[in-house]
Amino acid sequence: MRDPRVVRCAYYLESEIEPARAAAILAGEQSSGTFVSVPGESAELHERHGAQIVDVQHLGRRSPSLPSRTQPEKVHAARVVVEWPMENVGTDLATLHTTIAGNLFELQELFACRVLDLQLPAEFIAAQPGPAFGIPGTRRLLGDVAGAMIGTIVKPNVGLSEEQFRSVVRELAHASIDLIKDDELMTDPSYLPLERRVAVATEEIRAAEQITGHPTMYAFNITGDLAGLRRRHDLVVEAGGRCVMLNVPVMGLPALAWLREFAEVPIHGHRAGLAGSMRSPALGMSYRVWQQLARLAGADHVHASGLGSKFYETDDEVAANVASLLAPLGATRGPVPTLSSGQNVTTAAPTYAAVRSTDLLMLAGGGVAAHPDGPAAGVRSLRDAWAAAIDGVPLQRAAELAADTGDPALLHAVQKFAGRTPPEEED
Amino acid sequence: MRDPRVVRCAYYLESEIEPARAAAILAGEQSSGTFVSVPGESAELHERHGAQIVDVQHLGRRSPSLPSRTQPEKVHAARVVVEWPMENVGTDLATLHTTIAGNLFELQELFACRVLDLQLPAEFIAAQPGPAFGIPGTRRLLGDVAGAMIGTIVKPNVGLSEEQFRSVVRELAHASIDLIKDDELMTDPSYLPLERRVAVATEEIRAAEQITGHPTMYAFNITGDLAGLRRRHDLVVEAGGRCVMLNVPVMGLPALAWLREFAEVPIHGHRAGLAGSMRSPALGMSYRVWQQLARLAGADHVHASGLGSKFYETDDEVAANVASLLAPLGATRGPVPTLSSGQNVTTAAPTYAAVRSTDLLMLAGGGVAAHPDGPAAGVRSLRDAWAAAIDGVPLQRAAELAADTGDPALLHAVQKFAGRTPPEEED
Repeated sequence: MRDPRVVRCAYYLESEIEPARAAAILAGEQSSGTFVSVPGESAELHERHGAQIVDVQHLGRRSPSLPSRTQPEKVHAARVVVEWPMENVGTDLATLHTTIAGNLFELQELFACRVLDLQLPAEFIAAQPGPAFGIPGTRRLLGDVAGAMIGTIVKPNVGLSEEQFRSVVRELAHASIDLIKDDELMTDPSYLPLERRVAVATEEIRAAEQITGHPTMYAFNITGDLAGLRRRHDLVVEAGGRCVMLNVPVMGLPALAWLREFAEVPIHGHRAGLAGSMRSPALGMSYRVWQQLARLAGADHVHASGLGSKFYETDDEVAANVASLLAPLGATRGPVPTLSSGQNVTTAAPTYAAVRSTDLLMLAGGGVAAHPDGPAAGVRSLRDAWAAAIDGVPLQRAAELAADTGDPALLHAVQKFAGRTPPEEED
Repeated sequence: MRDPRVVRCAYYLESEIEPARAAAILAGEQSSGTFVSVPGESAELHERHGAQIVDVQHLGRRSPSLPSRTQPEKVHAARVVVEWPMENVGTDLATLHTTIAGNLFELQELFACRVLDLQLPAEFIAAQPGPAFGIPGTRRLLGDVAGAMIGTIVKPNVGLSEEQFRSVVRELAHASIDLIKDDELMTDPSYLPLERRVAVATEEIRAAEQITGHPTMYAFNITGDLAGLRRRHDLVVEAGGRCVMLNVPVMGLPALAWLREFAEVPIHGHRAGLAGSMRSPALGMSYRVWQQLARLAGADHVHASGLGSKFYETDDEVAANVASLLAPLGATRGPVPTLSSGQNVTTAAPTYAAVRSTDLLMLAGGGVAAHPDGPAAGVRSLRDAWAAAIDGVPLQRAAELAADTGDPALLHAVQKFAGRTPPEEED
């Protein structure tokens, strides 16, 4: 009997043949393409395990988006919805991934193939751990901080000596910031090993907290070989660290899910490399699908680009990324949408207007470190900018008000950052 | 001092700004984008760790391939070569991957970004394990089989009961085939658990070998959660299995590298999902780059599509894939290029003509199972087709000669397969 619980996926396809036929080829490839007849069983097997096309929406004809063995001038474009019985994938994330986003991208009949959306059966979602900390757990570790969380990245991202690193972290930790993170390129180099980074950063953060009273989280990048993953995680936890970071697309979702099994601190999920299978609108996977897989696997913080960033996604697309992260997914805890690249006081109001939530982490590189009055003023200016955004007070007006009452941090930030995108500011 | 050992990468880029400037933005993003000045050190740091553009080749102007925040009508196309000091990445594969194929795909200044080629320092290559078995080890496990190796896939790929599975494997094992593999969609489903598949297949293969005298390798798909990876591998080895399979793009290269550390049998590297970051010529990574990473991580067999396949790559592209796998890479053992999808007696000669080697594994689904005289004749016909290809005897002539001397297997295969691509035949 066919499992009534289904995995439902929407695809954008292009094909020279009728879209319904192209979709059927995809469905066959990704389920029971039974060209070899097994005595007396093929029809029953197909009925039980075959993927089914439940919707085909024609979108007209256009030039083919991707190369193939043939080069037709025009192809049909279509949105199709495919359903698999849950029995085919069970509750295994890698099997799900292979089923919805595996060989199908290679089919010569397709001139575009992109996973647009994914709806999973409740039983599949319930079988995944999801974030162990998510938004509530992260806030708790940050002294129940309210509003948008403010973070930054250690810069320069590579090449710092231990003493340089110490002085950068010291300054940031004294700024009462919520989160400091490693760059995705900074893993465990011989000139500044993770072990030393952990020792130095946790020491500096502890010392700063004695003064500021505000807990700071450091996201240590433990990306690297899997044999050493647990050791690197334990190194962080044993030193009193509060967060580990993983370059998820590079490490793979199974590595994230495995880390989730033993992680004692939140997992900061970086998306370095994701755009390689996301940026072409004709290929790969949309962000809303990928983030489902990443949060089911257990990412507590998930990178989502940033409004006004130096990355390719438009502000509307970034807002949609954040919305997808804030949308419920079964009973899983919500992950912290993490905004990065070019973030500063000028991006707070547009972000709040677009997402209507402060359940997010804004990573500001230059927005903190390059503040004319130093990082502490940088952090203060960002919190003020968020408060103004929520209160609906225009940024310039809020900056002047704050300056009048004795804190020019926001005003100086506005003077520095308004009207220009600082070069090479990033996460 | 700057490390004289360099990681060298060639990219295809498109940009509205001058290609050299676009390349510099990429280089900054992927190394020491030092907008925060660290007292007295920035220039030295950049000199030691900054990525350098060593070549820019203009390729004219064209319409942008990928969307970004702006939509220029025309952009510059260029091939650029970027070099990183090896010190930046050390010998860690995940750090290398993040460096050459991470955030750079997201840059708004780029309207195309693809890793075309990769040259690694000898010390990096030497620090990776590479395949433990590769071509020589695989041949040894197959009773020193000579020539092209012949394999097949259990079909239907999903949905078989244990008894149906047993009968399919029995028939294939009695055919003196070199390798049988699970479909990439077949992992550890409740209706036919891996444990039962391993028990049944190893039992049937052992029994068949008593009769045929030819060892058959079964590539059990151990794709799934990492916490269970070792257990699933051990299950195979303890039952006397000779090969494990991993869906490499889904599991991630670090999972492959980790499996390599404890695997006691060859690792069959499937590429399901790879095209999602490879098929767009403007984005992601070329096969020649990806295969380097996969073989350094330790894949013994690496899927490469197939000549005349139902997949999108042209025969020339597939031949280039195979050539890249057969090219030396430091002192690593050569992995077995694995051809799949639509392979049968008609694809042997074109394959040999294109790659001039029999150091490969040809996976024929219908080419074996759908042979009119049964799988044993299917395997025999494929070996005969390869012999004819090597001897330069036309397929039809070789088929008639064999039939005249009493074996019509090749002739019947030619009659069945020549001039048409069987539907739904695949890897």
